[in-house]
Amino acid sequence: MRIELSQAVKLLKENDNFLILCHSNPDGDTLGSGFALAGALRAMGKNADAVCEDAIPEKFLKACKIIENKGFEPKYIVSVDVADAKLLGKNVGGKYADRVDLAIDHHSKSHEFARYSYTDASAAAACEIIYQIICELGVIITKDIANCIFTGLSTDTGCFRYSNTTPRTHYFAAKLMECGAEADRINRVMFETKTKEYVRLESMILDGLRFYCDNKLAIMTITQQMYAQSGCDESECDGIASLPRQIEGVLAGVTIKEKENGKYKISIRTYPPVDAAQICSSMGGGGHIRAAGCVLEGALDEVINTIIEKTKPFLG
Amino acid sequence: MRIELSQAVKLLKENDNFLILCHSNPDGDTLGSGFALAGALRAMGKNADAVCEDAIPEKFLKACKIIENKGFEPKYIVSVDVADAKLLGKNVGGKYADRVDLAIDHHSKSHEFARYSYTDASAAAACEIIYQIICELGVIITKDIANCIFTGLSTDTGCFRYSNTTPRTHYFAAKLMECGAEADRINRVMFETKTKEYVRLESMILDGLRFYCDNKLAIMTITQQMYAQSGCDESECDGIASLPRQIEGVLAGVTIKEKENGKYKISIRTYPPVDAAQICSSMGGGGHIRAAGCVLEGALDEVINTIIEKTKPFLG
Repeated sequence: MRIELSQAVKLLKENDNFLILCHSNPDGDTLGSGFALAGALRAMGKNADAVCEDAIPEKFLKACKIIENKGFEPKYIVSVDVADAKLLGKNVGGKYADRVDLAIDHHSKSHEFARYSYTDASAAAACEIIYQIICELGVIITKDIANCIFTGLSTDTGCFRYSNTTPRTHYFAAKLMECGAEADRINRVMFETKTKEYVRLESMILDGLRFYCDNKLAIMTITQQMYAQSGCDESECDGIASLPRQIEGVLAGVTIKEKENGKYKISIRTYPPVDAAQICSSMGGGGHIRAAGCVLEGALDEVINTIIEKTKPFLG
Repeated sequence: MRIELSQAVKLLKENDNFLILCHSNPDGDTLGSGFALAGALRAMGKNADAVCEDAIPEKFLKACKIIENKGFEPKYIVSVDVADAKLLGKNVGGKYADRVDLAIDHHSKSHEFARYSYTDASAAAACEIIYQIICELGVIITKDIANCIFTGLSTDTGCFRYSNTTPRTHYFAAKLMECGAEADRINRVMFETKTKEYVRLESMILDGLRFYCDNKLAIMTITQQMYAQSGCDESECDGIASLPRQIEGVLAGVTIKEKENGKYKISIRTYPPVDAAQICSSMGGGGHIRAAGCVLEGALDEVINTIIEKTKPFLG
């Protein structure tokens, strides 16, 4: 059942022994949301842990101070930035998938997996909602909490660059910096730090960039062999999906990442009027209007052909 | 003579027939400042033109609506974002170099070339000061003015990423968006748009990146031949200077651009504790603590040796 912000705050005030679930393959927003909320609930004298199916990326650990989990028996389950129960994973989060009490999210889905849900699709990041909730809870925002929330705001907006950034995003960024958020350090870790191996991989990737559909579609491929040759780790390549859309005239920028199991993870970024979520849902995936994804199987050239075929009708 | 903000506002209120001078080789901040201030003064019923020695880059024209100059006889000369009279150029701005009435700037220099100067080195961009001045002048900020100021804020902070970004920068960004600044469109033009030729050049540049001084110094070279081979224009490469500093462990990232006259334009970006301005002033240039520049002559390998030699003592 969808509820209002004030009701979500009331539920958090009334309950205890919180387990906060982040989505698998975690990003700065789900982790920032989870650890900020857990920190705030602890500041209220409650028990609160935040968990994630997959390992927390090195980058995030460098940006934010993570609270240690206490491992009590959880009574109230909250998911943050989780659009679908599938995204909870199978082990850590998955075992709570059918007993989520409250979903807090900025994706406009129905969140039927949760008993209650508070969603605000106008929020650039789930952390934008978490900031409001923590203020409403009356918790003083410490430097550690501010760093977590700032990380979510900054990473989900490409450092205040993407179209989801609103005046509210900037206001909250200002307030978080006033609470001690180390914006400079976080942005440096999240956006300004590349390894030499990554730079080597980037040079290879740019070399293999191809254009289709009157140059409105750009496709970039990263194979397992390229990871091996460059010495660059897959986890370093999160930001790379924004690259093909950056090229003049490109309305749909596609990144194909070959996974270790031979499947291909497809990320699509678009510019108006092209709807990335629509394209990806035609290939069994989903996401936001400007950034969406799906997984394809088969030979690479077939995968590329499928993408071209499914994307073409949307390019006008 | 250094004056306060209120005095600068008073001078702008009391005078008329303004000529506003931007610095040569213009960036988003000097142009945004010049055209926003000219627009505001016109809104007060005054005559105001903004001029620049060099042609206005295509990017800026796409981001902002430029007011057309009227060409009256100027009576009051204002410079914006101009740290030194030399930066006014020789023809358009240079002929007013010895009669600048008011310098408005965020560089902490003395601005002795101007009769009065208002400087605020805590401002991330000159546009941050211009925003305050326009508010004090009581002018309503239109969408066009907001776009100009936002462009300066955004470009001088690397889209709110660099360490010069303060809470005030974010507050002003929020307010400008509320005044109609098209943040998304501007950021897209300024940061998210690369031509295919640029991507080709980038691949070449990354290939030629070299490391020195225990990998603390990274040097990247762009030659006239590389421009020719890639088909990429030099004016597209403004943002590239931030690249070498992004590599893990690099404290000083240097970009060498071969100019058409055979001279080399050097840009240095640093991380604490390395002072870019100090390094560049040892080679006859100057700038800010994290971003500075100079011009060197000679053979390319000599230029590289000079840079290594002059930078090494600062790398500890």
